[in-house]
Amino acid sequence: MVRGERSANLRLGVIVWPRSELLGDLLAEESAEALVVMAGSSRDPDLQPFVGGARLGDACVVAHGGGAWLAYFTSMEREEAARAGAGGVELVHPADFGMETLRREGKSSEEIFAAAVKAACDWAGVAPGRVALAGRPAAGLAVAMARMLEEAGWKPVSGRGLMLALRRTKTESEVEGIASASRATVEAFESVARMLARSSLREDGELWLEEERLTVARVKALAARVFAGHGLEQPESSIVAPGEEGATGHSTGTPERVLRAGESIVVDLFPRGLLFADCTRTFCVGEAPAALAKAHALVLEALDVSLDAVRPGVRGWTLHERVCRLFENKGFAVPDKNPGTQTGYFHLLGHGVGYALHELPSFRKTGPGTDQLRAGDVVTIEPGLYDPDAGWGVRLEDLVVVTEDGMTNLTPLPYALDPRHW
Amino acid sequence: MVRGERSANLRLGVIVWPRSELLGDLLAEESAEALVVMAGSSRDPDLQPFVGGARLGDACVVAHGGGAWLAYFTSMEREEAARAGAGGVELVHPADFGMETLRREGKSSEEIFAAAVKAACDWAGVAPGRVALAGRPAAGLAVAMARMLEEAGWKPVSGRGLMLALRRTKTESEVEGIASASRATVEAFESVARMLARSSLREDGELWLEEERLTVARVKALAARVFAGHGLEQPESSIVAPGEEGATGHSTGTPERVLRAGESIVVDLFPRGLLFADCTRTFCVGEAPAALAKAHALVLEALDVSLDAVRPGVRGWTLHERVCRLFENKGFAVPDKNPGTQTGYFHLLGHGVGYALHELPSFRKTGPGTDQLRAGDVVTIEPGLYDPDAGWGVRLEDLVVVTEDGMTNLTPLPYALDPRHW
Repeated sequence: MVRGERSANLRLGVIVWPRSELLGDLLAEESAEALVVMAGSSRDPDLQPFVGGARLGDACVVAHGGGAWLAYFTSMEREEAARAGAGGVELVHPADFGMETLRREGKSSEEIFAAAVKAACDWAGVAPGRVALAGRPAAGLAVAMARMLEEAGWKPVSGRGLMLALRRTKTESEVEGIASASRATVEAFESVARMLARSSLREDGELWLEEERLTVARVKALAARVFAGHGLEQPESSIVAPGEEGATGHSTGTPERVLRAGESIVVDLFPRGLLFADCTRTFCVGEAPAALAKAHALVLEALDVSLDAVRPGVRGWTLHERVCRLFENKGFAVPDKNPGTQTGYFHLLGHGVGYALHELPSFRKTGPGTDQLRAGDVVTIEPGLYDPDAGWGVRLEDLVVVTEDGMTNLTPLPYALDPRHW
Repeated sequence: MVRGERSANLRLGVIVWPRSELLGDLLAEESAEALVVMAGSSRDPDLQPFVGGARLGDACVVAHGGGAWLAYFTSMEREEAARAGAGGVELVHPADFGMETLRREGKSSEEIFAAAVKAACDWAGVAPGRVALAGRPAAGLAVAMARMLEEAGWKPVSGRGLMLALRRTKTESEVEGIASASRATVEAFESVARMLARSSLREDGELWLEEERLTVARVKALAARVFAGHGLEQPESSIVAPGEEGATGHSTGTPERVLRAGESIVVDLFPRGLLFADCTRTFCVGEAPAALAKAHALVLEALDVSLDAVRPGVRGWTLHERVCRLFENKGFAVPDKNPGTQTGYFHLLGHGVGYALHELPSFRKTGPGTDQLRAGDVVTIEPGLYDPDAGWGVRLEDLVVVTEDGMTNLTPLPYALDPRHW
């Protein structure tokens, strides 16, 4: 099609995408002309910053300092695409790259995607040179795309690091999106605590509620109902891991497992609106074994110490090391001294949160995004201690926004093991 | 590590992966030595057939007719990986490719993934030659992987078609997984119909329930609660699209939109357990406008005619064309004669369902998977009519398993517009 036909979009107004300047800088650092995002769904975290809440299937975005262009693949999605357009991206309609004709001709997905990417690159006026690839298309498609770009005179390079840096820097409305998901998470935990507090103990140690055994599934369903009421999803599910299941750190919990008095119950909820929230509390109904209570107090101390230290300029790894020393001094195995340990402390202290559950900054020692915390970062702090032999685990996780002089906690909840103290 | 250290896995027993023979045949057709699946999550539909319900982050699988090998990336996931191992894949532990060392050395994700894929290929004994790439890793990672495989003497080709063919052929337990999700979907629709039937009409046409306006969000939350109770997720969300929103075909519905009497309400639910289910009904509380009622009757006729014709040997496109003729004869625009129409009928009649919401077989005229239906295929049949100018839409969608002599309907629900007739 000719450019003139595109005027239909102009009524949406061309809003400058808020991070275009940052994108321009990041591209310059990589000596790349543009970012090319290919995705099978608008829920691809690399595509979301460009399309917001629009619901699309296959889609691709070409962006540089001068703007972003979205090619979508079916006219049925025109209303959803228009939502993305209203947010500032320019639309490349399916007809603009002869979508229907290509389909009718029986072209492969690879060929159809190539036509869309080519059209978007042309409209974006991408100069010959390096282009950074992002998104999560099928692997074979990504490889075919890279070949097509090469043949058309561009040099495709990985845009993974660039995209992670771009996503790390959040707009005000993105931070509010996380805060909003976090408010629902707080509500879900309060409901879970009430449910556990109301449960009654049978002689054999099982917890019952309303004449039925209290299972992992019932707790998960309760949290899911709260999230549903707020229009949130749980694309990564949730963790309700009692006793021996919580002791492994990331068992998600067996649905039919009945909760018992005196055991640890690790509840880790991470729903998503447009962006994720993430929070963990550990409960114990009835008297906690001494080792569990002691570990809980120590994990809470680690959390307090870490939260107090969160501010711009501090490295996540520094906070992690401090927690390792705290735990080590109390006789626990720790990951920096005992790599691969499956008891004690064995994960990192935190991670960034955003369109994906795990974002930059990273709390690792080395690698991308392991630099200092910055104002505007949204991170979790989640120390934990685990004893698979004794069958208990403790993890406490708060979600915070790093501010100029410290942090704002997005998960203002009690920490008590006993839900009756909430 | 040396091979001997792997003995710890052998206690899981080497179960032959049920589709290994099919995979061997598909690889032979493509003259490829192995399938390499790279994924950022075990919920990647290309990875799921190999790992079942195990919850993993980054992971890769190398498979051929002789078995499947799963490399995972953190020892914290050992319990989850063991679940996959119990299902028949052999495990390549993080230590087996020096994961921790690579991390400590600050290696890039690309390098770490490469080491894992290389280790899995070596253990699988993949001969030099073509390897089919599948999964949805970050695009830059896929391109880097392809380069690594090339340098190591393999020739990477797209495994997209092969993977789709493999996923199309379902095991008995996979079909049962879909049927199970579909039973919950039936229950959700019954709840939604009850909610709508109980609503009361205010003078201004708004529907109210329990002293509150009945909004799109309330209907979605009700369905979400039902799914949560069954341990199902809605990773692709849901559609509750009233009036003008349903008229566009795939608007998902604005949460705060209040439902009204006399308007069409398209409800399309597609939850996922391990696999998806998919069903659509259209409601109208109170008297339906004549055009809406007529369209509903016609869509139901199209559904009936199509369901009657479902059997092995029939092509989806043939069924689609038949529905186009039926609608065309009644004066509606149809997609095969009026490509790009945004009124009348404008989508395909159906699609396969499985680990992804849209799977093979395809109901398109040409392209992969457009051949005849086969016994064991799980497909939806979803005719629809839409009038954006008048502001209504109708879609009815049943999910069926193709059997030797026809089909079994997995969504035994009423079709009535008026929920009080359910």
